[in-house]
Amino acid sequence: MEAISPAELQPILDDIAHDMASATDRGEPAIYIPELGSVDPGQFGIALCLPGGETLQAGDATTPFSIQSISKVFTLAIALGRLGDSLWARVGREPSGLAFNSIVALEHNNGIPRNPFVNPGAIAVTDAILHGLQPRDVLAELLQFLRTAAEDDDIHIDKDVALSELAHAHRNIAMAEFMASHGNLQNPTALTIGTYCHQCAVDMTCVQLARAGRFLAGFANAPRLVSPSRVRRINALMLTCGHYDASGDFAYQVGLPGKSGVGGGILSIAPTRASIAVWSPGLNAQGNSKLGALAMERLAEATGWSVFG
Amino acid sequence: MEAISPAELQPILDDIAHDMASATDRGEPAIYIPELGSVDPGQFGIALCLPGGETLQAGDATTPFSIQSISKVFTLAIALGRLGDSLWARVGREPSGLAFNSIVALEHNNGIPRNPFVNPGAIAVTDAILHGLQPRDVLAELLQFLRTAAEDDDIHIDKDVALSELAHAHRNIAMAEFMASHGNLQNPTALTIGTYCHQCAVDMTCVQLARAGRFLAGFANAPRLVSPSRVRRINALMLTCGHYDASGDFAYQVGLPGKSGVGGGILSIAPTRASIAVWSPGLNAQGNSKLGALAMERLAEATGWSVFG
Amino acid sequence: MEAISPAELQPILDDIAHDMASATDRGEPAIYIPELGSVDPGQFGIALCLPGGETLQAGDATTPFSIQSISKVFTLAIALGRLGDSLWARVGREPSGLAFNSIVALEHNNGIPRNPFVNPGAIAVTDAILHGLQPRDVLAELLQFLRTAAEDDDIHIDKDVALSELAHAHRNIAMAEFMASHGNLQNPTALTIGTYCHQCAVDMTCVQLARAGRFLAGFANAPRLVSPSRVRRINALMLTCGHYDASGDFAYQVGLPGKSGVGGGILSIAPTRASIAVWSPGLNAQGNSKLGALAMERLAEATGWSVFG
Amino acid sequence: MEAISPAELQPILDDIAHDMASATDRGEPAIYIPELGSVDPGQFGIALCLPGGETLQAGDATTPFSIQSISKVFTLAIALGRLGDSLWARVGREPSGLAFNSIVALEHNNGIPRNPFVNPGAIAVTDAILHGLQPRDVLAELLQFLRTAAEDDDIHIDKDVALSELAHAHRNIAMAEFMASHGNLQNPTALTIGTYCHQCAVDMTCVQLARAGRFLAGFANAPRLVSPSRVRRINALMLTCGHYDASGDFAYQVGLPGKSGVGGGILSIAPTRASIAVWSPGLNAQGNSKLGALAMERLAEATGWSVFG
Repeated sequence: MEAISPAELQPILDDIAHDMASATDRGEPAIYIPELGSVDPGQFGIALCLPGGETLQAGDATTPFSIQSISKVFTLAIALGRLGDSLWARVGREPSGLAFNSIVALEHNNGIPRNPFVNPGAIAVTDAILHGLQPRDVLAELLQFLRTAAEDDDIHIDKDVALSELAHAHRNIAMAEFMASHGNLQNPTALTIGTYCHQCAVDMTCVQLARAGRFLAGFANAPRLVSPSRVRRINALMLTCGHYDASGDFAYQVGLPGKSGVGGGILSIAPTRASIAVWSPGLNAQGNSKLGALAMERLAEATGWSVFG
Repeated sequence: MEAISPAELQPILDDIAHDMASATDRGEPAIYIPELGSVDPGQFGIALCLPGGETLQAGDATTPFSIQSISKVFTLAIALGRLGDSLWARVGREPSGLAFNSIVALEHNNGIPRNPFVNPGAIAVTDAILHGLQPRDVLAELLQFLRTAAEDDDIHIDKDVALSELAHAHRNIAMAEFMASHGNLQNPTALTIGTYCHQCAVDMTCVQLARAGRFLAGFANAPRLVSPSRVRRINALMLTCGHYDASGDFAYQVGLPGKSGVGGGILSIAPTRASIAVWSPGLNAQGNSKLGALAMERLAEATGWSVFG
Repeated sequence: MEAISPAELQPILDDIAHDMASATDRGEPAIYIPELGSVDPGQFGIALCLPGGETLQAGDATTPFSIQSISKVFTLAIALGRLGDSLWARVGREPSGLAFNSIVALEHNNGIPRNPFVNPGAIAVTDAILHGLQPRDVLAELLQFLRTAAEDDDIHIDKDVALSELAHAHRNIAMAEFMASHGNLQNPTALTIGTYCHQCAVDMTCVQLARAGRFLAGFANAPRLVSPSRVRRINALMLTCGHYDASGDFAYQVGLPGKSGVGGGILSIAPTRASIAVWSPGLNAQGNSKLGALAMERLAEATGWSVFG
Repeated sequence: MEAISPAELQPILDDIAHDMASATDRGEPAIYIPELGSVDPGQFGIALCLPGGETLQAGDATTPFSIQSISKVFTLAIALGRLGDSLWARVGREPSGLAFNSIVALEHNNGIPRNPFVNPGAIAVTDAILHGLQPRDVLAELLQFLRTAAEDDDIHIDKDVALSELAHAHRNIAMAEFMASHGNLQNPTALTIGTYCHQCAVDMTCVQLARAGRFLAGFANAPRLVSPSRVRRINALMLTCGHYDASGDFAYQVGLPGKSGVGGGILSIAPTRASIAVWSPGLNAQGNSKLGALAMERLAEATGWSVFG
């Protein structure tokens, strides 16, 4: 992977943001949660944090958006820190080959979700963190983790989104109850799902998200929240499972670990080079940000960043 | 990823080979092809090629074994060279979430295999190369590719293994015919499967295989067979799909692209650092070399090599 | 189908009951609900109602047992009476090819259960009846239907079983929530599942159950609760779907419509000839009464009763 | 089931044929075999055989059509006569819950087809009959069975259809090879599939087919080809599995055992009352004759014939 100076990178970001601003085929925002469906699809933002401490940005990089499933990266980091490898008794580490909200794999695997980034897997992770605590404690811990990672205290949960999410949580409840039927849920479903819906409703900007991801890029001067060996493993999971059933394609086209959310955000890591956040609300058929994925392809091509050589 | 000198690496390999020699739980050799089932499971070999041109080895590194599905990496490289991205109209790039020989995904995807490394995907790749040629030409091209890559002409097909494979090819024929029913096969099934069975029956040693993999490690002084951008993409596919339904686990535990074969071999790439081949005939439940995977974990831990930081 | 006199039938029943009493391989009672698991597996009962008004019995035919899924026949009759064919917008009429509690089919069919006799289908039927009412009203209506059909007021819900069922209802709740996510549930999940768990917990004896089934046998002097055309259709569903993924086998071996429950009961109908109830708590691998199914085979063979000629 | 005189039945048939002649929504003929796709979809025929020996007809009842999967009923009868219950070690007796040509169930059941009326099941049945014989012998036996059953020697195989079928048999070959991989095929695939494609290509008229079905209706004066107990069991399989994934619906709407073919024919049995054949080439979404199924509903309603009371 090449080292590129901030001065070389800024025009690349500007070019990408410029082109994305005028893209006509932008995908459709997620509509299953009304609050997400009402976001203006014309927006696009990108932000980069570099090992030297610089933060670059272009487009709507300071507009807050709902990070949704990107939160799964942070709750996984917290859960591994709390439980260590015992977490893997409750959730697998394999790509699912199915949609993010498929319940089929749960039945085939006796209530063990395929990985921590499909919905049932993330619910199991949240359930593991919640054990012995109250939802408010877990959410406070997540916010503290995010604020420490981003070195920015202005990170909050959007309660309207959380409540809207909760009101449309039937499928996630179904998955939680299915896991419970196999003994793979430790808390009352309502508590776990309530916590999960709030964790997904964190609002962050691209700048905040890129800064929060620095601990995964191995920067010497970033807050060190997780051991290097665990960082590598979280990155591995993002690469193999971070984009649902389009994870293979993202690895092929972009070549970097990444995690997407239905709010249109993507957090992506170029180890030792950059922590990157992109955002555009319109989704493609696999539920990932259409322009976000395209922007990442453009960035990877322009920089030569890829974990694969 | 750390740079390590050959002098530091050799004792690591020796240690690994020593421990593997005395391992008692070695898995079971593949039995569905009689010739593979009769291999002595007590063997273990490892070889490494470094960017400076050195080749290190330990254990049974010069004993030939059947590369089986590792051949899929090389036929993919050939096919991408011949057809470019048009290949992807016939085969996907996503992990399957299923066993290497599952036909379920084929039905769900209308005859399009999930990726080039599950059996139906590799059959489609071979079929694509075969178009307009004779099986012998395709096999000659594969051998030439391997010999050039390894800079070693002593690489051959074991005809007994090929014929044994052909005699037990019902399931692969089923997949080929299923693809044919969806118009996703261009040659007569017998030709494609005949070619495929022979390509899997190439014999190589760990040393030969590690040398043949150098083109994927981006070494300046290795034969350049594929463009850097394509190298990255082949590595990406190996990482997400190279170990069937244990690909996520290999990425998590080892952190390097790799491709396994039921002969017990694994080819793994540490970009810019090393091309690695390990071999031990006993397989684990997912059909990958049990000691081979363990050896790769040991090597990755000892060297710090990982694409993920 | 042959006409057989009561005097000829009684020794047949006695023989069957005698042989079943000494059977050693009796299957295992359902254990997922503790109250069902504690039933003495040594019991066996059989009862028959004939068109002339006679009720024959043998074995433990007056011991109450939990009818469980047999209740689905009666709630279906009530739902069809209330909603008519509009019910079929919410539930299919096809055998599932899967276990009674599989959620896979629900995902493949967008939240529409395969038929009214798999768990999610029965939950949808109960949900349809419940619409606009309170659970107590629905349960009162069911008990009234059963009492009228059996001409016996001593039919009740076992509240301990109902509560135990509710405490282990995670999988049924999962199915209800999954249907809710597709808009195929009209009431709060807790109400529907609460009603469903109580409906399954009705206690009846073989004699009561055989009498309650007369309306499906088309007897002139039985309470007429459903039109002849609807009777035929309920019988059709019992034949194709009444024994979960062993329905085809029951049709092949016995040749009569039937509905089993995990309490070990089976209600079976020989149209114009007999309404039959058998009971033995031990289940076979498909979740149907092992001795109950065997007894029905014996009875069908001895009487020549079969809808198929 | 009611007894109805021939004089009452003829106007019912005439009415049905009249209405079907003018139906506008007729479905689409099967197109995967070119020869079937070119049949005029405007045709409709119906024929009935009664216990008194009468044969009634209306519409295009003497036009030959390709019986296709209806042949599976007759090969099943032959196989059961030859092998008895040992046949059931190779094929199940349960509805599949899937399309007629789905290979998914084969993988889930380790190469054992769900029932004798889905394609892989019928292929296994043909393979069982073929064991130790030549294809021509098996086909001669089938024709002899049909001619004896129909008391009509003018029943033949359309070789053009057979060859066209063979040229488009990839999916059936895939299923045969998949079964072979599980040891569930006794003959070379080419022989079994060759035989199967020819057996499906038998041409019969509605009159011939209704007459050939009399042995399943239990008529005293029809050729007795199969024991009464086996007749009941074949009828049971037709009812639960005879219309692929619309079997439940046919049982519900018509209430009689039946077997459809993609040529547009349906053979249906009203035990002791009638053997019925209908034909119209256009198919519905489940691959069954659209007007044929509709005609059977009309006939069942008009006559009150139903095995269910």
